[in-house]
Amino acid sequence: MLSEQGQRRVSSRELGDFLGVNSWQIRKDLFYFGGFGTPGVGYDIRELIGQINKILKLNVGQKAVLVGVGNLGLAILTYPGFEIYGFDISAAFDIDPKKIGKKVGNVTIKSISEIKALKRRKIKLGIIAVPRDAAQEIADKLVDVGIKGILNFSTCRLNIPNRVKVITIDIAMDLARLPYYV
Amino acid sequence: MLSEQGQRRVSSRELGDFLGVNSWQIRKDLFYFGGFGTPGVGYDIRELIGQINKILKLNVGQKAVLVGVGNLGLAILTYPGFEIYGFDISAAFDIDPKKIGKKVGNVTIKSISEIKALKRRKIKLGIIAVPRDAAQEIADKLVDVGIKGILNFSTCRLNIPNRVKVITIDIAMDLARLPYYV
Repeated sequence: MLSEQGQRRVSSRELGDFLGVNSWQIRKDLFYFGGFGTPGVGYDIRELIGQINKILKLNVGQKAVLVGVGNLGLAILTYPGFEIYGFDISAAFDIDPKKIGKKVGNVTIKSISEIKALKRRKIKLGIIAVPRDAAQEIADKLVDVGIKGILNFSTCRLNIPNRVKVITIDIAMDLARLPYYV
Repeated sequence: MLSEQGQRRVSSRELGDFLGVNSWQIRKDLFYFGGFGTPGVGYDIRELIGQINKILKLNVGQKAVLVGVGNLGLAILTYPGFEIYGFDISAAFDIDPKKIGKKVGNVTIKSISEIKALKRRKIKLGIIAVPRDAAQEIADKLVDVGIKGILNFSTCRLNIPNRVKVITIDIAMDLARLPYYV
């Protein structure tokens, strides 16, 4: 954001204020990965973005597969924010014959029965946007075709081998955090 | 989940394992709010759910308003998980004349120009699912009609009075956490 605003340097204090942590925590964390700042001067924003992208492995284009092209799946497919991190949702599957064959952006929706073809492609990330009852079965299929990381939008707690990382997003639980404060 | 599975009691150790924290942290945190467990026996799940709902103010039905009924907004309106926490999305607004007047579930989509009518209703929670460029304007309108908590799905960082709590959900950023692990 600061880069977009034309700022070139940022201090650990500014970063800390923005994130709600102490500036020494910022310096300590970044020092752990090599420390890219200059004392008294701060961090070069462009270099810092590059280094953080490298740490998070976002410096290489990451391909992802989406399963479930309902309202949420459509929202994910057309979400503008993925480009920032170099993500490319390059495959989408659904079970509904009315959706199969349709094109959304650059992606043609395919039948879930064809998911095994993913094995030949080098896609490591999967996004699950199917109803709760179907989520575990889809997760199993994704693991089977070699997916290593799953973003799970179903409220289902997935039973998955430890080598596969799962991040679950429960929109209702996020909303449920608000009333405490209001 | 345990309650659904028919379990009646749960230990702090089980809760800790589930959440990835120490059992003493569970006991300490719950003790802070009154401590509802029995040493050596654990927590009565049904009572614990009730107490946590009370702490989080989820024991009273919470009404929310949605602004932006695109793909994401539709997904939110039809999301099945809100009922668990007693949420009721009881109003929805959009700017697109083609959408205004349409009914999704129990909610009729209204024009954003009518949002001031919300002042008379006791809705405290707002959900923003509009494009980034429109998010700040919508946030201002929501604050103006008395919204106290905002769930923000736009990638826009909102400039909002401190008395209003904002939780931002950036789907791309969540996905961006995965490559580090895979």
